[in-house]
Amino acid sequence: MATPTTAARFEDLLSVRAAIGRGGPAPGGQAGRKPGYEFGSGRPDPASFPYDGLVVATARMMAAEGADALTYGDPQGYVGLRELIARKHGRFEGLAIGPEDLLIINGSSHGISLVIGAFVDPGDPVICEAPTFSGTLNTLRRHGAELHGVPLDAEGLPPAAVRERLEALRAQGRPCKLLYLMPNFHNPAGPTLPLARRRELLAVAREYNVPILEDDAYGELRFEGEALPSLYALDEDGIVTRSGTLSKILGAGVRLGWLLAPRDLLPIFQSFNFGGGVSPFTSRVVTYYLRDHLEEHVARLVEVYRAKRDAMLAGLDEVLADTDGEISRPAGGFFIWLRLPSGTDRAKLARLAAESGAGSVPGTSFFPNGGGEGYIRLAFSYESPERCHEGARALAGAIYRSID
Amino acid sequence: MATPTTAARFEDLLSVRAAIGRGGPAPGGQAGRKPGYEFGSGRPDPASFPYDGLVVATARMMAAEGADALTYGDPQGYVGLRELIARKHGRFEGLAIGPEDLLIINGSSHGISLVIGAFVDPGDPVICEAPTFSGTLNTLRRHGAELHGVPLDAEGLPPAAVRERLEALRAQGRPCKLLYLMPNFHNPAGPTLPLARRRELLAVAREYNVPILEDDAYGELRFEGEALPSLYALDEDGIVTRSGTLSKILGAGVRLGWLLAPRDLLPIFQSFNFGGGVSPFTSRVVTYYLRDHLEEHVARLVEVYRAKRDAMLAGLDEVLADTDGEISRPAGGFFIWLRLPSGTDRAKLARLAAESGAGSVPGTSFFPNGGGEGYIRLAFSYESPERCHEGARALAGAIYRSID
Repeated sequence: MATPTTAARFEDLLSVRAAIGRGGPAPGGQAGRKPGYEFGSGRPDPASFPYDGLVVATARMMAAEGADALTYGDPQGYVGLRELIARKHGRFEGLAIGPEDLLIINGSSHGISLVIGAFVDPGDPVICEAPTFSGTLNTLRRHGAELHGVPLDAEGLPPAAVRERLEALRAQGRPCKLLYLMPNFHNPAGPTLPLARRRELLAVAREYNVPILEDDAYGELRFEGEALPSLYALDEDGIVTRSGTLSKILGAGVRLGWLLAPRDLLPIFQSFNFGGGVSPFTSRVVTYYLRDHLEEHVARLVEVYRAKRDAMLAGLDEVLADTDGEISRPAGGFFIWLRLPSGTDRAKLARLAAESGAGSVPGTSFFPNGGGEGYIRLAFSYESPERCHEGARALAGAIYRSID
Repeated sequence: MATPTTAARFEDLLSVRAAIGRGGPAPGGQAGRKPGYEFGSGRPDPASFPYDGLVVATARMMAAEGADALTYGDPQGYVGLRELIARKHGRFEGLAIGPEDLLIINGSSHGISLVIGAFVDPGDPVICEAPTFSGTLNTLRRHGAELHGVPLDAEGLPPAAVRERLEALRAQGRPCKLLYLMPNFHNPAGPTLPLARRRELLAVAREYNVPILEDDAYGELRFEGEALPSLYALDEDGIVTRSGTLSKILGAGVRLGWLLAPRDLLPIFQSFNFGGGVSPFTSRVVTYYLRDHLEEHVARLVEVYRAKRDAMLAGLDEVLADTDGEISRPAGGFFIWLRLPSGTDRAKLARLAAESGAGSVPGTSFFPNGGGEGYIRLAFSYESPERCHEGARALAGAIYRSID
């Protein structure tokens, strides 16, 4: 029934948001053919998926509450899953929350889009890190946000620079609608924000009355050191919303995450989550599995991903140690951030990297206002430790041979 | 961490859309205690859910493609499910479409919100039926649409009245952004739009360059008569987007539906569906089940729901036959629409209906611009035929005794 002219016919009828970015690439797709070493997108380790455990959980769940799994659900999300997530926050962080503090969502990106939609009209200023997660950049741009990227230093987002930006906006009479940041194992850059900075950022946000969106997709996957309290946990004023996800600790294919937020903000986010609750079926399957296996499964994943990180770091270090390239050493998460050595010929690198078979994401994808040409991001999450090592050596060789 | 003042603190920071309807009821919830007879919301028949079939399908699917089920998916949706939906359109309607014509979504309401979001900015005119589906009314209102309800007659939406409204808008220089309608087994009113009207509405929409959103949540559940071609099937100009769902033919808890649309519109709708594809896990579970069971399962559901409709109609007719009340007799779907007899004392009816234990939805919920006080909607989908009959008699008795 389609004609090639349908979109053109309705071009003038598109909403302001839909018209933003028309002609750009379709979101979410992965271009080109599959690389030999999948270091591009942050796909979870397939060997760690609990295949049998989820089949058993499905059978047990359907026997116990199949009728509820197959009909419309609670708009806030299955209470059993919310209880489990609340318990998780207690076990992993000593944070006392309840199911009424949570909204179940279709994965972290969905939750982030609900928060952005609640605050951002086209043209509104938003402060984010530079670099930051490319998926959220896409969502912010689709909503027409005016992006103010604040450069990271070795410890993450500097509160003084955030204050400066807020002061400049205030001088223009323009309120900042949102401050978006990743305090743990920053994607892509790696740093974990120190406690003092967390407190300072809260104070700045309170002073300028800016809602904070704390993206914590990887918080459970800490390879070493002690967990720091989240901004949500430190917040005494109800200004922080925190997003989490099962994508990294169970499987991205279940499309389940949560928003943890001041209770009176949850209905505002929820009101743009149309339909009969988020996945009553899948929510119950994963709850039945994780009730019995959460701690042991996460402990296993920490071992798995630490080994992969170490293997990739070893492969990079073995080849690039005598260059001035900089390689992040994140305390958790999925990613390594690499500043290319001075004098790297990027055209030559593109050719040699393709020959090496190792994928990566160019640094430019992560910057809200341009820049990042000298960086690449590598994901160690998907490939085995052996292949992380081998592929990292191959890519590092390509980099080495590209130095002028 | 929440304080009672968070929403108030950020009230001025809310987006235009988030500020719409603040202070209204939270969407999606069901107020009050459960009625004895659940005739209110259109919940699918729980006895017909394929509990064992889905458990078997989960085990088979996980063995065959568990890794793909648990990682990020195709942004357009699992191709196996799109192939199955395309095949369904061939089998049930003789409509030749392919997987590339479909976008998988989190249930029909989600798809409808994507289409509305693509076209409607706050203040934009939208034409819909009066009455129409209350869930879509909520979504339209949340997006700030200016609603133009066109009254239905016994055959559904009258094309001449739509043309009149479009002409009036054109005279004001305001394009209508969307025409939303339900041609089959209209919810709540019941009529199925005749073929001639379908053609006429297409001609009117083409003439005024209005995109049509055809909501076909119940199309497979036809109890009698021949299926008419959908507006999508009749459309030669690429102006129709049609939404469908597995909620009524499998289970609302899987939260899966689809948009069938001109191919170059799909990326526009998809671009506001953030995240890693719609439920790769659940999409595969239901595909593995429905590949082998679709036709037999739908045939069974048609028997099940026809028996319930007939039982409810019998119960109503037995008591109300000698009044001037009007009772719809839909050829499919989940709902009966009842115009109360002249002289019904609505305050008295509210009291007696509560005593009868039978739930219903007041007609006012379905009207975009007021009205509907003399109507109620009854769902026969959830209760058994016996209870449909018994509850309908009880409610009809309450109505009868409320006539002045």
